[in-house]
Amino acid sequence: MSDATTRPSTRRREQTRARLLDAAHEIFGEVGMDGASVEAICERAGFTRGAFYSNFDSKDELFLALVSRMAEAKMDEVAGRVRDLSTSAPLQPAALVRQVLGVSLGEHTEPQLMSEIRTQALRDPRMAQAYLAWHERLQARVAAVIRTVVDTQGVRLRLSVDEAARLLLSLSEESSMFATIEGKSEAQIGAVLADRLEHLVTLLVDVS
Amino acid sequence: MSDATTRPSTRRREQTRARLLDAAHEIFGEVGMDGASVEAICERAGFTRGAFYSNFDSKDELFLALVSRMAEAKMDEVAGRVRDLSTSAPLQPAALVRQVLGVSLGEHTEPQLMSEIRTQALRDPRMAQAYLAWHERLQARVAAVIRTVVDTQGVRLRLSVDEAARLLLSLSEESSMFATIEGKSEAQIGAVLADRLEHLVTLLVDVS
Repeated sequence: MSDATTRPSTRRREQTRARLLDAAHEIFGEVGMDGASVEAICERAGFTRGAFYSNFDSKDELFLALVSRMAEAKMDEVAGRVRDLSTSAPLQPAALVRQVLGVSLGEHTEPQLMSEIRTQALRDPRMAQAYLAWHERLQARVAAVIRTVVDTQGVRLRLSVDEAARLLLSLSEESSMFATIEGKSEAQIGAVLADRLEHLVTLLVDVS
Repeated sequence: MSDATTRPSTRRREQTRARLLDAAHEIFGEVGMDGASVEAICERAGFTRGAFYSNFDSKDELFLALVSRMAEAKMDEVAGRVRDLSTSAPLQPAALVRQVLGVSLGEHTEPQLMSEIRTQALRDPRMAQAYLAWHERLQARVAAVIRTVVDTQGVRLRLSVDEAARLLLSLSEESSMFATIEGKSEAQIGAVLADRLEHLVTLLVDVS
């Protein structure tokens, strides 16, 4: 049986998606989202357009999946750090932020890609829907991290967990976008982000 | 003497700029920033390309000037409201935000245009520089408003005026962008913004 008639296994499907995302990431870095054609992405990944469209409805959807993959990887890392917290002695808010964020926060944020995806979401209702669904999942993950920190560290928030998640995520996105426009390096962006978030968190918690 | 050899008066120059900006605003609404050609903008405004390029270095610069004009108009309005405050009795933080912001905050924010300009600033170092210079001026105006409120209303901030300005501006930009992607109307965006800012301000001031 040929690939065309066999439904690929979940594992193979995941590999195909991953290779298409890797190729899109590379090509995005070279020519931006507008310049990245489905043809070029397929050629780089070594797949046909058929393989592309059996995995993604459109180029926009592929790029949203790419941003989603990067954000998920970062949140996995953060969630791991939060789990480690529960076995250590309670920390002060500022130290807590440093501990939870780690040092890699500015890496692979791709604000350029995020900005192009937002522009697209502002133009196109379908993309808007996909963007909002993704953002809601991301915010729920951030909220889960905050909830764990609140529970294990005995932190008292001055606002709801969901509101805190929204505020921290807003500030992160805005700060990394801005620091990138300023021409800062990934390491510098990470430092700016950690500073801003640390500062915001001290305003959001009650220190008794 | 012909127009080509006479240096136009400042007043005429301002009128030309204003008409080019009006035309760009209209055309942006029809076809977006990428689709808006210098030719189409000139034709709509009734000017030659020569008139365009004696006022703006590029299409990007024109659109940044457009965003800047909208933001300045909004800040003029806010500054007027703040001046009115000084003659009234001191208000609680939430009421203060409502009073200063007024009801027109969600109007003419053009998050789509802002998003395209940011994408451009992330790509192009010249545009980045122009964007950063503009944003610095805007933030200074927001800081001046906060400083006046602090002085006249006896508000005690839990962070510096500049940090408060940055945080409020970040949250405003992020919230109006997001509310637009959600398909909200200008009136709804204004309501979301007022809610968010009101809430943030209560976290940023010491209520004694």
